[in-house]
Amino acid sequence: MSSHWFTERHESSGSSIGYRLVEQLADEQTPFQRIEIYRTSDWGNLMVIDGCTMLTTRDNFLYHEMMTHPALFTHGAPRDVVIIGGGDCGTLREVLRHPEVASAVQIEIDERVTRLAEEYFPELCESNDDPRARLLFDDGIKFMSDAAPESLDVVIVDSTDPVGPAEGLFNAAFYGTCFRALRTGGILVQQSESPLVLLDLIQSMHKAMREVGFSETRTLPFPQPCYPTGWWSCTMACKGGDLAEFREADAAGKPFATRYYNADIHRAALAQPEFMRAVLPR
Amino acid sequence: MSSHWFTERHESSGSSIGYRLVEQLADEQTPFQRIEIYRTSDWGNLMVIDGCTMLTTRDNFLYHEMMTHPALFTHGAPRDVVIIGGGDCGTLREVLRHPEVASAVQIEIDERVTRLAEEYFPELCESNDDPRARLLFDDGIKFMSDAAPESLDVVIVDSTDPVGPAEGLFNAAFYGTCFRALRTGGILVQQSESPLVLLDLIQSMHKAMREVGFSETRTLPFPQPCYPTGWWSCTMACKGGDLAEFREADAAGKPFATRYYNADIHRAALAQPEFMRAVLPR
Repeated sequence: MSSHWFTERHESSGSSIGYRLVEQLADEQTPFQRIEIYRTSDWGNLMVIDGCTMLTTRDNFLYHEMMTHPALFTHGAPRDVVIIGGGDCGTLREVLRHPEVASAVQIEIDERVTRLAEEYFPELCESNDDPRARLLFDDGIKFMSDAAPESLDVVIVDSTDPVGPAEGLFNAAFYGTCFRALRTGGILVQQSESPLVLLDLIQSMHKAMREVGFSETRTLPFPQPCYPTGWWSCTMACKGGDLAEFREADAAGKPFATRYYNADIHRAALAQPEFMRAVLPR
Repeated sequence: MSSHWFTERHESSGSSIGYRLVEQLADEQTPFQRIEIYRTSDWGNLMVIDGCTMLTTRDNFLYHEMMTHPALFTHGAPRDVVIIGGGDCGTLREVLRHPEVASAVQIEIDERVTRLAEEYFPELCESNDDPRARLLFDDGIKFMSDAAPESLDVVIVDSTDPVGPAEGLFNAAFYGTCFRALRTGGILVQQSESPLVLLDLIQSMHKAMREVGFSETRTLPFPQPCYPTGWWSCTMACKGGDLAEFREADAAGKPFATRYYNADIHRAALAQPEFMRAVLPR
């Protein structure tokens, strides 16, 4: 067995996570970033962007299921969905499992992320040819700013960390464009980093989301081994409605298989650990 | 800032977790194992045994709270508690927060673990002088085998991994001694590794626990950044009773502070991800 390891040293938390490698499969410098793909000994394939782990074959189901199904089962009837980022297409695949969805547009800035995902994570891309799917390679911030008012039901922000290209996705200006583009009852959901390390970022997201008019906000924690601390979260905001409730019977009887998400897990993810309850709005 | 890192390479899962170090505080070879203590840049102090991360100052609250409060709030009136292992005394501290507990005996095989914890994790040892506490340094397997029948309410197995000294804590012979020593309504709870990596071990624990007479078994997952995959679990077994129910009002009104556990988190931890539900008994 190879003794080569890829290790991501997460400077801001002073911790690292690594994987035992078998071989490098790709290494590209795109106009936006450096993308590496490795085959690992135990985690399937691994995608790394600018030195940060993006996903592994083995554990991406946790993230992709939790970025989609809670939001889509909270919305009463999600028809028009937009995914900002999400170039590996795993989020798109989960969105398209919902028969109510009529249109899912993915706006990824770097086409090479998607092309490499098609090659090395083909299972995540199996719905890319769905007639309801549209893949754009463009700037998500500009897309949302140009979106027609009240034209969308769910906006999913599946981006990298809030530094570099994704920085502009974590502020009130961007949330304002999402709020405007959502219909009443619409939901914004965004990946919101590790609750243990970036609770101050999560707090600022709640504040900025409410500032632009979202009536309620909630952070749902979930396990995600390949990201710093192994514990991650998404934060939902709604334009009217109640994030504590969801279509529980529909979730329990969902017409598709999952590996993590189910109605009980959805309810469970709404529970707030004491240290989060102490600082986040209810 | 130091550029030294401690990295635990977890061979069986092909993944690693590391911490940025400031300095080494202790390095001892005891009759049982090698214990190292480090000061880290972001995680407080770090205890390593035989190369495996045992705990950090920053994130041990997750493990210690989840190893104790779900079991103690599930039991109707926990009076006599035994902790097998648990040498850092963090589990003991959480147990003693329950006013119903009249006696808590900790049986740790290696006294040096506790003495080093007293020095480098003093906050975990702050209840060691509680008159209800008794610290023994002895073999936990022998202790349980000698325990008087029907003399205990809760047995907590807070051990290292099921290899080496702790191997004998993960089989029907040991569970049989726990079952015998527990009163009716008694609860056994044991750390049960990463649900993502060691689901087959968890299955075998359920099987062995039921074999010796426990009427119900449940695995509760929780985040634990310093352990492989960052996702951990405890498995509970009861001698009669119902593990899906707990003293919810008492948990909601608990007379002590926690940082992770609360009644909602207890209920949430009972939710089973789809891939666990598929293979574990209900």
